[in-house]
Amino acid sequence: MTGQQTFFDAALASLGPRGITCDADLVEPWLTDWRGRFQGRARAMASPASTAELSALVRLCAEHRIPIVPQGGNSGMAGGATPDRSGEAILLSLRRMNGIREIDLEGRKVTCEAGVILQTLHEAAAEKGLRFPLTLGGKGSATVGGLISTNAGGTQVLRHGSMRALVLGLEAVLADGQVFSTLVPLKKDNRGFDLKQLLIGSEGTLGIVTAATLKLVPAIAERVVIWAGVPSIQAARALLLHCEDVAGESLEGFEVLPQASLEAVLDHVPAARAPLAGLHPWHALIEVVADEANADHLRESCEAMLEEAFGSELLDDAVIAANEAQSEAFWLIRDSISPAERERGPAVQHDISVPVERMPDFIDAAVREMEASWPGTEAIAFGHLGDGNVHFHVIAPGGADRDAWQESDGKRISRQVHDLVTKWGGSISAEHGIGQLKRDELARLGDPVALHLMRQVKRALDPEGLLNPGKLV
Amino acid sequence: MTGQQTFFDAALASLGPRGITCDADLVEPWLTDWRGRFQGRARAMASPASTAELSALVRLCAEHRIPIVPQGGNSGMAGGATPDRSGEAILLSLRRMNGIREIDLEGRKVTCEAGVILQTLHEAAAEKGLRFPLTLGGKGSATVGGLISTNAGGTQVLRHGSMRALVLGLEAVLADGQVFSTLVPLKKDNRGFDLKQLLIGSEGTLGIVTAATLKLVPAIAERVVIWAGVPSIQAARALLLHCEDVAGESLEGFEVLPQASLEAVLDHVPAARAPLAGLHPWHALIEVVADEANADHLRESCEAMLEEAFGSELLDDAVIAANEAQSEAFWLIRDSISPAERERGPAVQHDISVPVERMPDFIDAAVREMEASWPGTEAIAFGHLGDGNVHFHVIAPGGADRDAWQESDGKRISRQVHDLVTKWGGSISAEHGIGQLKRDELARLGDPVALHLMRQVKRALDPEGLLNPGKLV
Repeated sequence: MTGQQTFFDAALASLGPRGITCDADLVEPWLTDWRGRFQGRARAMASPASTAELSALVRLCAEHRIPIVPQGGNSGMAGGATPDRSGEAILLSLRRMNGIREIDLEGRKVTCEAGVILQTLHEAAAEKGLRFPLTLGGKGSATVGGLISTNAGGTQVLRHGSMRALVLGLEAVLADGQVFSTLVPLKKDNRGFDLKQLLIGSEGTLGIVTAATLKLVPAIAERVVIWAGVPSIQAARALLLHCEDVAGESLEGFEVLPQASLEAVLDHVPAARAPLAGLHPWHALIEVVADEANADHLRESCEAMLEEAFGSELLDDAVIAANEAQSEAFWLIRDSISPAERERGPAVQHDISVPVERMPDFIDAAVREMEASWPGTEAIAFGHLGDGNVHFHVIAPGGADRDAWQESDGKRISRQVHDLVTKWGGSISAEHGIGQLKRDELARLGDPVALHLMRQVKRALDPEGLLNPGKLV
Repeated sequence: MTGQQTFFDAALASLGPRGITCDADLVEPWLTDWRGRFQGRARAMASPASTAELSALVRLCAEHRIPIVPQGGNSGMAGGATPDRSGEAILLSLRRMNGIREIDLEGRKVTCEAGVILQTLHEAAAEKGLRFPLTLGGKGSATVGGLISTNAGGTQVLRHGSMRALVLGLEAVLADGQVFSTLVPLKKDNRGFDLKQLLIGSEGTLGIVTAATLKLVPAIAERVVIWAGVPSIQAARALLLHCEDVAGESLEGFEVLPQASLEAVLDHVPAARAPLAGLHPWHALIEVVADEANADHLRESCEAMLEEAFGSELLDDAVIAANEAQSEAFWLIRDSISPAERERGPAVQHDISVPVERMPDFIDAAVREMEASWPGTEAIAFGHLGDGNVHFHVIAPGGADRDAWQESDGKRISRQVHDLVTKWGGSISAEHGIGQLKRDELARLGDPVALHLMRQVKRALDPEGLLNPGKLV
């Protein structure tokens, strides 16, 4: 019997026929990332149903020195869940582990397994009058395990933080199959290193997240969604500070987009309408929310906030959504920017951050530099101004061949953007992670001291390098 | 020349005469922890003036294999900053590195060096109309570096979190002398493992914190301090949940103490007066605050909150402090519990947490069990109910000899308390850290998987074991 056969038989005996398969029809769809950028191979796909099954599988893999590539909803942006082309690894699907174990109303927390889909979690919390305050475009497929492993962001980070801020406890299987667990969270615990923090955002390279206890917040009782036209990105930042001062903790979203992005959406999304009459260099989408206890007068105080901003020339025009339908329509514009930009033609995209206060000047400088260096391109930035995080796209000159352009000029442009971000003290991955997409760029531009530390930690926790090899470090 | 002489001469050349000394008069006072529980020896005391000087010193120590024991204000509770008795180590004082480098008003953050004293930081923030929202008894001596290294807590954790939640960026010197820095913080950064989190709370065993960028919040414009008498610790928790529901983010402190602790304070602090007329099984000290933007009607809404609580029988009696002086008087009672308890006689003290929702039942069960197991003792719990963290003291029977009792029964009692806390899923160190005080207990009771992980990380980052040896792991 070959080593592969021995491994497979042992895994089959342990996981059962639903737990492991080599059937190409079943495995193939998960070997390419959803944007079609990375394609890999795998010797099998394992789908354990429990932490105990996964622990046994990892021990078996350690014994046979078989690499493991964990995968949740396969909706990542950096190829972090796609195996390499060697076919050595098993693809580990966490999707069968999708139980919501407990929702604690009084303690406002939920304990659920790694394979729970974000939207399912939203619905389960809503049923109890609570809310899980993190959302993003891929909510219909992204899983809790993937969100934790990539420390996912989204449009509510301004108020509630990234995934890291919402993880109260977690459970993970380590490289040797041992189970680390802090699922019953303590609010205060100073017994040494915070290992939970080390696992969050480690992209499955230090351990495989199997379950988590997550923070919930009261459901929204009232929300006010505002669309504002602003004269400059500097004014947008001043408007943000004004809104933070006035609305405080109620300010939950503050997204920006340039006129060009709005027009791209209007061109490509038939249902989209411009919220304001005129043209404006920049637009801000602002969401202010309140739970039951704070819902009174929210709309009136937003109106006062906008009037004051208008008086201080922080905005040129603004409208408050008249109802839920219009609120959703405003958000549809925001959520359609990426697909609309994609339809405009080939582009390279960057998920970057710089220190929050430098972002307006960075955007101006970066757009100018990129368009000057690469004649015919158009550079745009949109997204989470309040987090110092924008998505920075450089669109190819008209008529460029997508694949050829992306492979040649596109790659050079990305390097130049990353150089610029590094010069401004920023990050080449604000919220999407490193995966395989940015691993070489991280090695090229990352702080050598931090990289050295990361490699030391990786070697200590996964000396054989079996956990998600080729990713991150 | 001896090795010691070579090392000392090289250090002297690098740090200058103010930077290193063997003068017993200067070194001696820092070789005992402030509570007098631990006494150590050191070959010298180094006091570098900058990160660069410290980096050079650590390289020199690595070369000569000399252990380093970092120390801030020497106000820790677990002997974490006291060297062992071998005299091998140098004592590293961070107190000369006490510059506040920058206060960023708009970004509400401060960058300061490790040796800045907490009270100095409070004053510097207040001067700018801002506030650093962490405070504790030792604020006159505790330093920023020590607070970060121990992930300090205090009485505002309920609203603002422990030190970890307030550290936006940090700088540290690693075991090989390299400098790790994230002093210019990014709100979003997903470039791999969050190494900053690993250093926070690691008690100087993985790196020496030299500077940090910390979060500030708006100054308090209005505060309401309430003293409530409650019928049981379960009622106190129900009252806490009620206050959280009504006051939301404005609720900043919620401390509890039993009648016996109040009486101890009244007996031992001449200035203290009972806030309420009658006796109550438990007392709650509640602080609700608001900044300028939210100061209106704070008092009225607190009155309504209390009336409702009274109607629901969550409290028996309550009083709102009439002015700042009375507010301070209420807090003086809380802050005097530990010294007052000390004056009552020998006791063993435990800084413990259990899952927040289990704390009331834990207190009842633990008091019962300890007093039954150790006739003549009195067990009391007081502190941060909202964080699931209380200080649990067991007071010796009358007439016991302090030293003898603490060494015999006291040690056995502590082990029993720690066993009980572990059984309830809690932590034997909620906020004081492990240091040398609880290292053996952590090894005895800690999760073996977590301990194994910690040792792996420690070995990876400090293979020679020179950073704060004998502490934590």
